[in-house]
Amino acid sequence: MEFSLLTLGTASALPTANRYPSAHILTVRERLFLIDCGEGTQMQLRRAGISFSKIDHIFISHLHGDHTYGLFGLLSTISMSNRTTPLYIYAPEGFKAFLDFFMSQFGEGVKYPIVHVVVKCSQPTEILRTKQVTVEAFPLVHRTETYGFLFKEAEPQVNVHKHLIEPNNLSLYEIARLKEGLDIVRDASFVDEDGNIVEYKETLLCKDFTYKPYVPRSFAYCTDTMYFKRLSKWIENVDLMYHDSTYTTEFESLAKANFHSTSAQAAMCAKEANAKKLLLGHFSSRYKSLDVMLNEAREVFSNTFLAKEGTKFEIPFEKINIR
Amino acid sequence: MEFSLLTLGTASALPTANRYPSAHILTVRERLFLIDCGEGTQMQLRRAGISFSKIDHIFISHLHGDHTYGLFGLLSTISMSNRTTPLYIYAPEGFKAFLDFFMSQFGEGVKYPIVHVVVKCSQPTEILRTKQVTVEAFPLVHRTETYGFLFKEAEPQVNVHKHLIEPNNLSLYEIARLKEGLDIVRDASFVDEDGNIVEYKETLLCKDFTYKPYVPRSFAYCTDTMYFKRLSKWIENVDLMYHDSTYTTEFESLAKANFHSTSAQAAMCAKEANAKKLLLGHFSSRYKSLDVMLNEAREVFSNTFLAKEGTKFEIPFEKINIR
Repeated sequence: MEFSLLTLGTASALPTANRYPSAHILTVRERLFLIDCGEGTQMQLRRAGISFSKIDHIFISHLHGDHTYGLFGLLSTISMSNRTTPLYIYAPEGFKAFLDFFMSQFGEGVKYPIVHVVVKCSQPTEILRTKQVTVEAFPLVHRTETYGFLFKEAEPQVNVHKHLIEPNNLSLYEIARLKEGLDIVRDASFVDEDGNIVEYKETLLCKDFTYKPYVPRSFAYCTDTMYFKRLSKWIENVDLMYHDSTYTTEFESLAKANFHSTSAQAAMCAKEANAKKLLLGHFSSRYKSLDVMLNEAREVFSNTFLAKEGTKFEIPFEKINIR
Repeated sequence: MEFSLLTLGTASALPTANRYPSAHILTVRERLFLIDCGEGTQMQLRRAGISFSKIDHIFISHLHGDHTYGLFGLLSTISMSNRTTPLYIYAPEGFKAFLDFFMSQFGEGVKYPIVHVVVKCSQPTEILRTKQVTVEAFPLVHRTETYGFLFKEAEPQVNVHKHLIEPNNLSLYEIARLKEGLDIVRDASFVDEDGNIVEYKETLLCKDFTYKPYVPRSFAYCTDTMYFKRLSKWIENVDLMYHDSTYTTEFESLAKANFHSTSAQAAMCAKEANAKKLLLGHFSSRYKSLDVMLNEAREVFSNTFLAKEGTKFEIPFEKINIR
């Protein structure tokens, strides 16, 4: 029951010898979701031992090269497998030109459908719902149309409290209905003072008989963006949050001019969102050491970490045990 | 006086965790020439500590993705430097669409001219001549229009034999002319038997008075191609030859079907060309070990080596010492 983020790239516009452009794999149980696809993503995926066939959904935050230049290579490589199932790419409208060019120049061997799901919204909007996860897109504030993504593990089917089954004579049918989240109305009766059988409708409220077996987990991807107040509301209480951290506070005005964030601003957003953990990434190539960046963030939000190529951050599965 | 080939990528269509797609740096003295530009080239260049500003000429053999997908990233990164000098890209006609798309989608910040020099020929044809080097393109036999490149170090300015200067009364002017490769015709005279001064024109042939101070070196880049007889004539006596070696002999028919070569065919070409050294590359991802491939080639042409990411093959500077 894995829920984890594997980082493949933490560079900003300029990759370095060790930092790749943006790309991440979110694993929700056995399903993999690729988020952004900078140059070299396919090699990073190979290094991580990830099978491309497990990826059915790719999320592109915006169309800058450091988030997209790995797509051509990845799509070409996938075309050399036997894939026939669709690959869904969630990206802004402008991605159409990108995909059209790819198909016209390099699409000859592409035997699987590539479906561009247009992302366009000014408020958080659901763009995908599977058995495992729902994904919302929300607008970020960058130089070009850019979206963040909130991944929420699906709400679990509720369990029925075992100690309430026998005393309440719950039938298998009723248990099944309760597990679907439905209240039960059933025929009941009692004998009144005069010895008459009184029939009535008895209502069993689902909430009184059930509990969630685990806490659904969540991840918010927020890059590239400048700090803005509303963002924290859209991702409130998120378990893990990845945020643009291009600069240290020394370059706050440059961050603003380039529509990026400092690590302290990322931390401020995490604090306001009541996030559980913050992951910093999208580092400017000017930083060889990221110590200052991390420290400045931790002063604002202590549970902050640096993303790193090949490093996985897991959100543990939290089971709720009731008796 | 370096003349060397640094390999950045040896993969064929499918990169692996350790093999990058095709890209190489030929260094001729202080000038760098990038040959092919597969995905990840800019990161490989950074790892090799190579300054992008030293690259003025990029040679693209053909437009398959494993030879071109790194261009967008490299061109974008260069645009973030202060480059204003032109960057020349030698590539087949179809590259125009590639460049047009790049400029329309990602060209906003590109302040330097990118000049597409169209390569189109059916015979070896000079496409570049600088002080250091001349470059010829020649057609290869592949699934799409593909060219090889022959880099020849410029012929050196000749030196005048020192021991001939005084006996022949060579003036500084005459020495300068000889060094430019010109013969000298000068007024001379002698006294005949009757005591008369006879004037005549004396010719000093450049070839009798000069020698080449060093042997110019050469490199031939031959990927992707199936084996064909004429190729060896076009690159005769080359010092270093890089050749398509996608398969072992076991897969010779597959090599033919895919318009690629086996290592033994590469070796045959090197032998027929009387090359001094052969470098194999463009390896199929099916091979974890390349031992069989190397051995099969060495049976045909013993001075064969495997190209490897980050490995440099130097051709030594051979000085000609005359007294």
